[in-house]
Amino acid sequence: MSDRILAAVMEAPHQPIVVREFPLPDLPVGGALLRTACSEVCGTDVHLWHGRLAGVPYPIIPGHVSAGVLDRVRGGLEGIDGSVLREGDRVVFFDVHRTCGRCRACTVHRTPTRCTARRVYGITDSAADGLFGGWAQQIYLEPGVGIARLPDAVSFESYIGGGCGLLTAVHIIERATMRPGDTVLVQGTGAVGLSAIALARLSGASTIFAIGAPAARLDLARRMGADVVLDLDATTAEERLELVRAATHREGVDVVVEAAGSARAFEEGVTLVRDGGRYVVAGHYTDVGPSTINAHQHINRKHLEIRGCWGSEAGHFLRALSLLERHAAHVPWAEIGSQRYGLHSLNEALADAAAMRLTKALVDPWLS
Amino acid sequence: MSDRILAAVMEAPHQPIVVREFPLPDLPVGGALLRTACSEVCGTDVHLWHGRLAGVPYPIIPGHVSAGVLDRVRGGLEGIDGSVLREGDRVVFFDVHRTCGRCRACTVHRTPTRCTARRVYGITDSAADGLFGGWAQQIYLEPGVGIARLPDAVSFESYIGGGCGLLTAVHIIERATMRPGDTVLVQGTGAVGLSAIALARLSGASTIFAIGAPAARLDLARRMGADVVLDLDATTAEERLELVRAATHREGVDVVVEAAGSARAFEEGVTLVRDGGRYVVAGHYTDVGPSTINAHQHINRKHLEIRGCWGSEAGHFLRALSLLERHAAHVPWAEIGSQRYGLHSLNEALADAAAMRLTKALVDPWLS
Amino acid sequence: MSDRILAAVMEAPHQPIVVREFPLPDLPVGGALLRTACSEVCGTDVHLWHGRLAGVPYPIIPGHVSAGVLDRVRGGLEGIDGSVLREGDRVVFFDVHRTCGRCRACTVHRTPTRCTARRVYGITDSAADGLFGGWAQQIYLEPGVGIARLPDAVSFESYIGGGCGLLTAVHIIERATMRPGDTVLVQGTGAVGLSAIALARLSGASTIFAIGAPAARLDLARRMGADVVLDLDATTAEERLELVRAATHREGVDVVVEAAGSARAFEEGVTLVRDGGRYVVAGHYTDVGPSTINAHQHINRKHLEIRGCWGSEAGHFLRALSLLERHAAHVPWAEIGSQRYGLHSLNEALADAAAMRLTKALVDPWLS
Amino acid sequence: MSDRILAAVMEAPHQPIVVREFPLPDLPVGGALLRTACSEVCGTDVHLWHGRLAGVPYPIIPGHVSAGVLDRVRGGLEGIDGSVLREGDRVVFFDVHRTCGRCRACTVHRTPTRCTARRVYGITDSAADGLFGGWAQQIYLEPGVGIARLPDAVSFESYIGGGCGLLTAVHIIERATMRPGDTVLVQGTGAVGLSAIALARLSGASTIFAIGAPAARLDLARRMGADVVLDLDATTAEERLELVRAATHREGVDVVVEAAGSARAFEEGVTLVRDGGRYVVAGHYTDVGPSTINAHQHINRKHLEIRGCWGSEAGHFLRALSLLERHAAHVPWAEIGSQRYGLHSLNEALADAAAMRLTKALVDPWLS
Repeated sequence: MSDRILAAVMEAPHQPIVVREFPLPDLPVGGALLRTACSEVCGTDVHLWHGRLAGVPYPIIPGHVSAGVLDRVRGGLEGIDGSVLREGDRVVFFDVHRTCGRCRACTVHRTPTRCTARRVYGITDSAADGLFGGWAQQIYLEPGVGIARLPDAVSFESYIGGGCGLLTAVHIIERATMRPGDTVLVQGTGAVGLSAIALARLSGASTIFAIGAPAARLDLARRMGADVVLDLDATTAEERLELVRAATHREGVDVVVEAAGSARAFEEGVTLVRDGGRYVVAGHYTDVGPSTINAHQHINRKHLEIRGCWGSEAGHFLRALSLLERHAAHVPWAEIGSQRYGLHSLNEALADAAAMRLTKALVDPWLS
Repeated sequence: MSDRILAAVMEAPHQPIVVREFPLPDLPVGGALLRTACSEVCGTDVHLWHGRLAGVPYPIIPGHVSAGVLDRVRGGLEGIDGSVLREGDRVVFFDVHRTCGRCRACTVHRTPTRCTARRVYGITDSAADGLFGGWAQQIYLEPGVGIARLPDAVSFESYIGGGCGLLTAVHIIERATMRPGDTVLVQGTGAVGLSAIALARLSGASTIFAIGAPAARLDLARRMGADVVLDLDATTAEERLELVRAATHREGVDVVVEAAGSARAFEEGVTLVRDGGRYVVAGHYTDVGPSTINAHQHINRKHLEIRGCWGSEAGHFLRALSLLERHAAHVPWAEIGSQRYGLHSLNEALADAAAMRLTKALVDPWLS
Repeated sequence: MSDRILAAVMEAPHQPIVVREFPLPDLPVGGALLRTACSEVCGTDVHLWHGRLAGVPYPIIPGHVSAGVLDRVRGGLEGIDGSVLREGDRVVFFDVHRTCGRCRACTVHRTPTRCTARRVYGITDSAADGLFGGWAQQIYLEPGVGIARLPDAVSFESYIGGGCGLLTAVHIIERATMRPGDTVLVQGTGAVGLSAIALARLSGASTIFAIGAPAARLDLARRMGADVVLDLDATTAEERLELVRAATHREGVDVVVEAAGSARAFEEGVTLVRDGGRYVVAGHYTDVGPSTINAHQHINRKHLEIRGCWGSEAGHFLRALSLLERHAAHVPWAEIGSQRYGLHSLNEALADAAAMRLTKALVDPWLS
Repeated sequence: MSDRILAAVMEAPHQPIVVREFPLPDLPVGGALLRTACSEVCGTDVHLWHGRLAGVPYPIIPGHVSAGVLDRVRGGLEGIDGSVLREGDRVVFFDVHRTCGRCRACTVHRTPTRCTARRVYGITDSAADGLFGGWAQQIYLEPGVGIARLPDAVSFESYIGGGCGLLTAVHIIERATMRPGDTVLVQGTGAVGLSAIALARLSGASTIFAIGAPAARLDLARRMGADVVLDLDATTAEERLELVRAATHREGVDVVVEAAGSARAFEEGVTLVRDGGRYVVAGHYTDVGPSTINAHQHINRKHLEIRGCWGSEAGHFLRALSLLERHAAHVPWAEIGSQRYGLHSLNEALADAAAMRLTKALVDPWLS
């Protein structure tokens, strides 16, 4: 194998993605190289391209959730589950490669996703520092990264179809403290929303409503487990509210999940949840402007709980793998990543994603 | 004793309170008459007077939390704690005299304060139906009302000084899931806010901040347990935020309690709480208009929990009594009710309360 | 229709069940008569027959969970969901017909299943007081009983197959605070255990283990959702522990549900759950003697949570109905009630149940 | 300063403690040397001496919680709170110096105190590996240890008086999910029990009961905040149960904390807690043999929650410091460490502790 590989680089916001050659790194003990089988273009990548995240050390190699085959390992490599990993193994890894374990967020508050020293593949590391992103033929796995064997029953496409959205959805469902029989409404039918629908279904939800667009995503939402899909473009907020109330003893649903990332969605969500219900806000990864709500009507008198949900932890990653192992055969995660792009087509992929022409683009860096 | 007594009646919103004679009712078995020693004019009464609550069956006798001496009892009267109550006993009662125990709010959702059949003394019963409010020389306690003996150590003034605000504060502290050592900020230094400060102090809070006005209330806030008081009129929101951050590792506080009932307070509260903290919204008893927040900055990235808190339950009433019994000697609840009004002075009391010239007016219906 | 009906009476512990004629009661306003379609013989009835429950006012008409058709209604009858109920409607009712809503268990502690005034059909009311049990052709539904329409999609057999065990299981799953992907082990494959398996499956459990006997119940356990069934008679506790550890990263399971009612089962359960896991104890409805555990090994060092789970609330009843409506078509609840007995065969039914020859006997009081 | 210092070594269980000279280590970047001002002899040290803990790499330098002055620092030293630490600073450190952050206990289960790679000063490191215990004139603080400045208001004696027992108590109170007004009973008046009493008092407990011995500890228990002390040697379990029930509406207390480490205490604890209450088991650090309870009476029908509580986390350490800062002036933590021993007197200290002649021995390694 050659000692140089190709990676796609985002040099700055709004600039075209360029493909560059990179040397393969010397591995320290406990480090590894992953031959990328599949990575993704997700909503975060569009945000990165639009320059909407603060503190990003451009140029970067994007691609935070990825899967592949261990190409080279130096010293014994231990998986996050304690197993021994070997060259040739099909593996995936937790994209958050560092949290400090010492700061008040990590210790006193037990909110490691708010650790200020948090580092994430594809986002927080400069391309100058090495192969820290999935839009590359090889990814450098530094010592300590949480690596796990991908279960045989799970295809690369299922894993990446779920991708970071699935990890977020595992966190969402945990925050939602669901009980079987709860009614659930998911705002947004992108990657996060679709996985949230699937996990709500697996958690014993009774009726699941989904609000989204376009039609193809709504169709997929149904197949992920939604009972009732509401086309954002074909209905008004008033119509949706009436429909939900008519189906829920005129109460609204037990749990609303916000996975839409729109200021209007947040305003609508507080009307759709029942008194005493829970509203998990997980789609506002970037600032899309202010929302206006009424603290009396929507929170205080409603006795409502609103729960922000940021990022995911290693435990969510491991739980996602266990859920995929059991359910990937009958939940169409693989269909979320509807189209496959090579490194030279990623500008097109970003444009397609930004225009919502696809839910998620799969990246195959070996595709010519 | 005469068979007619006096009560103050609110005939309609914005109308002067008038004093009328009422006949004493025939008691059913299990019913009782309470000779009122003390009732209150609280914020809710001002709202009632301003017509800001829906569905109120005017004319009403206001006064929801009250204390007195059992004047007449028909049949055996059992306290909510199972004890036998007798004429002459000093007692108080839970103002919510009916919830259905059958609706979905009462059963499936376990949110009895959202029961649609809920009835509250001083608010939901017409004066035509009898003596269902505390602004009267006698109060009719219908069978089933939750009556408890007032501990000897607790004066009528301490009990009414706490009043409905204390019951709400017990619910607030429960919703806040505080741990000893938490930092707390209370927005609002009215009756609810002052009791929330006292209970946060009893719950082992480290630094307690209070935002309010005017100076006299801030002084009382200090004596209820606040460490740092911030004058709403003498500081800007930016100054308050900077001060709070400087005192909290630049994080914000663990718990913010909203007891101010202003749309601006809600907007400020989400900035003062730390990432992963809890924001209990309890002051928006009526609609004071919309608030504008940013779902990304203030909820999602903050991993924040916002918890509406509506009304109180019988358990909060009993817990309030147990807290008063232990702490009324050293917590100045009696000072919250700063001035005493007879039935003929209640227009003045309402005007004083509306103008925030006092925190809470005490009502003594026997004062001439 | 005749004004006399038949009911089976348990006159005292260890006495044969006898069939007697009862007059039909005059109905008060809000009362109703239910023509029984189906009732059950459950483990509690065996306990009643063996005299293992304290304070039972023999003679009684057993049968606490029942279903039927409204035969007579006096005045408007409102369902617990607020709907209007009419003669001819297929309905079921919550067997706990009174809790006080006033005692400390009901209010301060929010544990209504520990209310001392709690009254339960088939257990706490003497036959001298009327038709308060399901082993009768008609059941008297007193005003205030929580009645609900049985969804069209749910057969009487599915409802009674679930029966009181399903209600308990809804409570168990709530106490277990399950998350999708949790591993679960259920001890006991009686009516409670089988429904707990089904609900764990609906809640997204990954591997579900069941320990029970005999073979027919284990087969049904599989069809309710268990992945691995362990025959209590064919394996030792050591073998079961090793098998569970081998399948769970050598940790033990996340959640153990005790639904066996044996002192040995409790001792075994604490070894099968992982460190930091949850153990819900729900099968010890009567006293079967002491258990010996090690507080260091099994609780303290394990950082274990053990959660007793007693009875069920109206909310569990309503949630059970909603789960049945959605899932009765594909979960074989109807098979739990394997055999149907008339009133004259109930001695045989009790003997069969006591000898574990069947999981649950269905009672059809019109069967000749 | 000399390059050799003295430390007390436990060479094997049941062997006399010996004092040896140790060389001072070369410091790596980020490492530090602490000149010990004060360490402790706690119950764990007695267990170590009796050989009751598995896997201890004797010889060891005991002493897990310690305080002192930074003597030497190599490279910049950052406190766990992010502050810069300098030679001469009064500091303390979290005794758990390693958890892996990768295993299932650390990630999926969020129970880092059950991490299998956990390392604790004074327990898990051999004296051959260096100065990893507090019974030494200097302690080696390896890079990454969680160091914090001791607040000026907190004496070394207050900090060590609280010591590991205080950290455990912070964890206990968190596990107890206390609300102000709860009644609490603490079993055991050793270091853990005394701090649990203090924290329950700070958390707004109403009546606090303590069961313990001898008289001196009970006296201190009162001054830590207990209202009612019950002498274990002068009362029977039946008398204690009757006394507690008489003072708690015949219910038992809301929360029992087991900090006694006796098999009989665990058996008694389940009788003293009310139905639906919480029992935190924290005193069984070692195996003292089996306990016998009744799963029906004590758990299932009681609807009880039993919560094991193992070790403490960095967040508990930081919270303990914040509580000490606020409360050390009025809570007599300094009195728990009643007597001061030099390195040459530690055999005597262990004997005194084992015989319960003192609650905690303070170790001053510079005392001649």
